[in-house]
Amino acid sequence: MNKILVAQGGGPTAVINQSLVGVVLEARRHKGIDRVYGARHGVRGIVNEDFVDLTQETSHNLELVAATPSSALGSTRDKPDAAYCHKMFQVLKAHGIGHFFNIGGNDSSDVVRIVAQEARDAGYPLRCIHIPKTIDNDLVLNDHTPGFPSAARFVAQAFAGANLDNASLPGVYLGVVMGRHAGFLTAAAALGKKFADDGPHLIYLPERDFDIDRFLADVDAVYKRHGRCVIAVSEGIHAPDGTPMIAKLAQDLERDAHGNVQLSGTGALADLLCEEIKAKLGIKRVRGDTFGYLQRSFVGCVSDVDQREAREVGEKAVQFAMWGDQDGSVAIQRAGHYAADYALLPLEAVAGKTRTMEDAFIADSGTDVTDAFRLYLRPLLGSGMPDAYRLRPAPVAKVLNR
Amino acid sequence: MNKILVAQGGGPTAVINQSLVGVVLEARRHKGIDRVYGARHGVRGIVNEDFVDLTQETSHNLELVAATPSSALGSTRDKPDAAYCHKMFQVLKAHGIGHFFNIGGNDSSDVVRIVAQEARDAGYPLRCIHIPKTIDNDLVLNDHTPGFPSAARFVAQAFAGANLDNASLPGVYLGVVMGRHAGFLTAAAALGKKFADDGPHLIYLPERDFDIDRFLADVDAVYKRHGRCVIAVSEGIHAPDGTPMIAKLAQDLERDAHGNVQLSGTGALADLLCEEIKAKLGIKRVRGDTFGYLQRSFVGCVSDVDQREAREVGEKAVQFAMWGDQDGSVAIQRAGHYAADYALLPLEAVAGKTRTMEDAFIADSGTDVTDAFRLYLRPLLGSGMPDAYRLRPAPVAKVLNR
Repeated sequence: MNKILVAQGGGPTAVINQSLVGVVLEARRHKGIDRVYGARHGVRGIVNEDFVDLTQETSHNLELVAATPSSALGSTRDKPDAAYCHKMFQVLKAHGIGHFFNIGGNDSSDVVRIVAQEARDAGYPLRCIHIPKTIDNDLVLNDHTPGFPSAARFVAQAFAGANLDNASLPGVYLGVVMGRHAGFLTAAAALGKKFADDGPHLIYLPERDFDIDRFLADVDAVYKRHGRCVIAVSEGIHAPDGTPMIAKLAQDLERDAHGNVQLSGTGALADLLCEEIKAKLGIKRVRGDTFGYLQRSFVGCVSDVDQREAREVGEKAVQFAMWGDQDGSVAIQRAGHYAADYALLPLEAVAGKTRTMEDAFIADSGTDVTDAFRLYLRPLLGSGMPDAYRLRPAPVAKVLNR
Repeated sequence: MNKILVAQGGGPTAVINQSLVGVVLEARRHKGIDRVYGARHGVRGIVNEDFVDLTQETSHNLELVAATPSSALGSTRDKPDAAYCHKMFQVLKAHGIGHFFNIGGNDSSDVVRIVAQEARDAGYPLRCIHIPKTIDNDLVLNDHTPGFPSAARFVAQAFAGANLDNASLPGVYLGVVMGRHAGFLTAAAALGKKFADDGPHLIYLPERDFDIDRFLADVDAVYKRHGRCVIAVSEGIHAPDGTPMIAKLAQDLERDAHGNVQLSGTGALADLLCEEIKAKLGIKRVRGDTFGYLQRSFVGCVSDVDQREAREVGEKAVQFAMWGDQDGSVAIQRAGHYAADYALLPLEAVAGKTRTMEDAFIADSGTDVTDAFRLYLRPLLGSGMPDAYRLRPAPVAKVLNR
């Protein structure tokens, strides 16, 4: 019996189940495959032999699961070392798995690389394929990664709304966006902007060093010009020496509430920056939101382009494995304005490496994106992006004029 | 010349521009009305004579603005006293305004009441109509208020996603929802729940006193049962003596970072509750999000029922004023499963009063809603609510079984 195993790793996305279902449905078409197993909670489910038989699932329910966000098999934050990977390999061998598909980001691709090496060393016939997924968009040699476009759409729509809210009740609004090392998702805030005076007026990315004095001067200048200011901030902003700003701010302000807590999954960075603005610039109405888990798990905000591509990387993974008989990492490549194509890259070329935003995508000011980035991201957001309209000014002459 | 004036007050909603456009387009149909003015930034625009002539706007652009969230005329947080209202009346008189429409919540209805009284006292012919709007759903004698259904839809979708995320990577997830005195919006989290073991498992409303020890016991019990826990918390939760929990927690923990800051618009409450759970229950993976402005301004999450009703309250306001020749506050009344009708209530009956969640909507446990609430809210969320699906279990027998 030829069996394949599929697993999902890392943070959930809006479309990761598309890739899962892409693997399952495509695998069912191949005569060489008898069983499709899924590992519960990623690599941990592999070492624990916690498998479900996806061959018994209806194609109808699979399609409904595909359209459901988050990881239907469950995920894990385990980061396997060599010993962990060795155990995984032993389980794969014991179950007679012939093909292993792992859907995830950097860490997941590295696991695939190590397990593939184990199999080669043991002379066991195992095809290992990494299927890309990450809202951070930080896999090298990929035009972009499934999950990023939908999260980017959420961020763009959120800032489009925050801008309208801020225009209605002027003040300073600051939104903190996920992405520890890569600023792509934060930069997506720029796609929420329509009119020239719309926010976000300032965007702070982890690709540029953060300086609190320059930040305050930037905010002050925008506030004086527009009477309001909308700011997108990456959770990964850091001082020139690499210290995360949240740690630095908490320390500088001699505050202990956030000194020893995790750096993300809290509202601390937004709160600390807002307090700085209030204290130093004397602006009263300052509000900060941390987008948190909403940006990766919100049900009902998804890019149809992302859905299609996430499905296809799953399908292509099976095709590469069955017809190409190769290990590797599936990657999306841009093939037009806009079209996508797929390649199988060597695992060593992708595994464990981190892409950050290219300089060509960041404006010289360091607080905005370029048109090259807008051109890059816009088609990925998909169809039906909401648009914002405003009343045209037709002022009425004053009578009392007091 | 007969002129009407329309203004928008308080926090923006996803559909407040529908009401504005409902007034403008309906007013244009009436022969008795020559000009439709809009006040920029609510009551402040009235005292400042900051008006725009909406008669000159195209109906096409008005329709596009109607579908755009937030207040297209701008809003204000000003809470007018008697002197402020007197100034407003003087401006209305100077411009020959014959009808005044104010779209907003409690405070806005009270302004309409005072201005109407001013006009009566001065013997000046002015029809004054309050048009309801608030995501808090806290206007008395209204089945519900425009803006609430769309915000509720956002909250329900957010928790549906957070639940999937939490099921994939188990731990404790806590989301803080707007609503200082009324828990309707927080309670909407329950509509994100589909399967019996789905979150939110616990819901904390301002209608019930909050006790931190009972909260921790609740979380502990759910976590032991399901291996995870999803919690919805109103920003308005308070101790039995009325002290907001955020103030109490910050004080108890001898922390100063949040002691003197505003009680909403920060991530502090979520962070403090998460720290309590980590410290007292020893659970490692605890994450808190504060939904903040996303829940009222997100572009692209709207209830079509809410859109239609928000449009109709605007239209009905003009019809009541022109055909009924009465002052009052427009209210939505439920007329079937599901159908809406509209009434004009006396301003005194609505102005300045606050509705909270009825006991029949809150489960005896105090941490869940009743089916009566589900029946009440579901039709308001509108069509096309996203649904979540899961894989059916088909476990594979273990081989190594280590």
